[in-house]
Amino acid sequence: MTNGFEGIFITLEGSDGSGKSTQAGLFKDYFQRHEINCLVTREPGGTVIGEAIRAVILNPHFEGMVPETEMLLYAASRAQLVQQVIQPALDQGQVVLCERYVDSSIAYQGYGLGREYLSKVRLINQEATGGLKPNLTFLYDADPEGIINRAISISTQEGLAGGDRIERRTPAYHARVRWGYLQLAEADPERFVVLATKGRTPQELFAESIKVLRERFPSRF
Amino acid sequence: MTNGFEGIFITLEGSDGSGKSTQAGLFKDYFQRHEINCLVTREPGGTVIGEAIRAVILNPHFEGMVPETEMLLYAASRAQLVQQVIQPALDQGQVVLCERYVDSSIAYQGYGLGREYLSKVRLINQEATGGLKPNLTFLYDADPEGIINRAISISTQEGLAGGDRIERRTPAYHARVRWGYLQLAEADPERFVVLATKGRTPQELFAESIKVLRERFPSRF
Repeated sequence: MTNGFEGIFITLEGSDGSGKSTQAGLFKDYFQRHEINCLVTREPGGTVIGEAIRAVILNPHFEGMVPETEMLLYAASRAQLVQQVIQPALDQGQVVLCERYVDSSIAYQGYGLGREYLSKVRLINQEATGGLKPNLTFLYDADPEGIINRAISISTQEGLAGGDRIERRTPAYHARVRWGYLQLAEADPERFVVLATKGRTPQELFAESIKVLRERFPSRF
Repeated sequence: MTNGFEGIFITLEGSDGSGKSTQAGLFKDYFQRHEINCLVTREPGGTVIGEAIRAVILNPHFEGMVPETEMLLYAASRAQLVQQVIQPALDQGQVVLCERYVDSSIAYQGYGLGREYLSKVRLINQEATGGLKPNLTFLYDADPEGIINRAISISTQEGLAGGDRIERRTPAYHARVRWGYLQLAEADPERFVVLATKGRTPQELFAESIKVLRERFPSRF
């Protein structure tokens, strides 16, 4: 039951508040307008089981959660999403767009919590995903000032005053996450497209993303 | 703040319904009566975060949970229990008794779900526990007939009619779990003490366990 195409796996990465959800919405509209068979999902969550895990991960009362538990929970949600949603859609030749994936764990749990966790988080995610890698990753690199406040303000609107458990971490933590993302992009320039968000509207960023998609996959977009 | 002793880490293992909880209760009473500084806990759970993870693992509506997600969730709960509860108690020289630990994952997710998961489950648990191993493991080896019915009847009393998600699996699954446990015991006879439960009362089994404890740790019990 494929549509004759190879599946394409695209991920959106970046710090909290960098505008990934807005971009995901623009991609979804675009794919629908152009009748491109697509699936748009997000992490952590994306499945009923994943949403239950997400509620545990982000619970602001669970401040004492140790780094290993945090990375194993993200990986558990990811394993479910890969096997239940992403891989079947790719097998049918769909375009799969996922907000956050393994790079998020490497940036947040590896670089963010401490370099001693880097090999651990890579290894656990290899087991969780069976090694499934995105074909293309857009990294929205945001000016650190202000973006965490934007993320916390979104969470507050959603009923989590002061932000969720991850958003509440220190500015130094969020700076390490950003640096980690840039390291990942530098190490894999074929897969990563880094888009600096400063001074650009969501529409401008999106136009640039579509340009990249057309260059990389001329037969599909 | 140690009591001058080395910590001793003891685990109770065995199939659902093999009587581990009853034995844990008897150990707890015994330790208290003999004023032995001890901590008795259980998996999955044993911490507030672990209990939240346990609710996800055992939810009977989550039938579609993939093996990788299941093993990562058990490992996540375990990492929290080790770092928050078990290791600090051992560091203070306490006797720690834990109902289920890594061997459960190897028996249930490795041998139970399929041999292809064995290396994955070992590797994930190595990362989750930092390699912390029990000093002694009691394996309650139960006659497979009847014990699953006993486990399901306990769950039904606790409001989970028909048993939790794991208990509902097939008899062949539970037979593989039992065989897995026996393989583990055979591979590590120094650590494992196998107690056949058939035809013996909980008190008889407990008397034998205490005899073993006195032989292994004569200065403590």
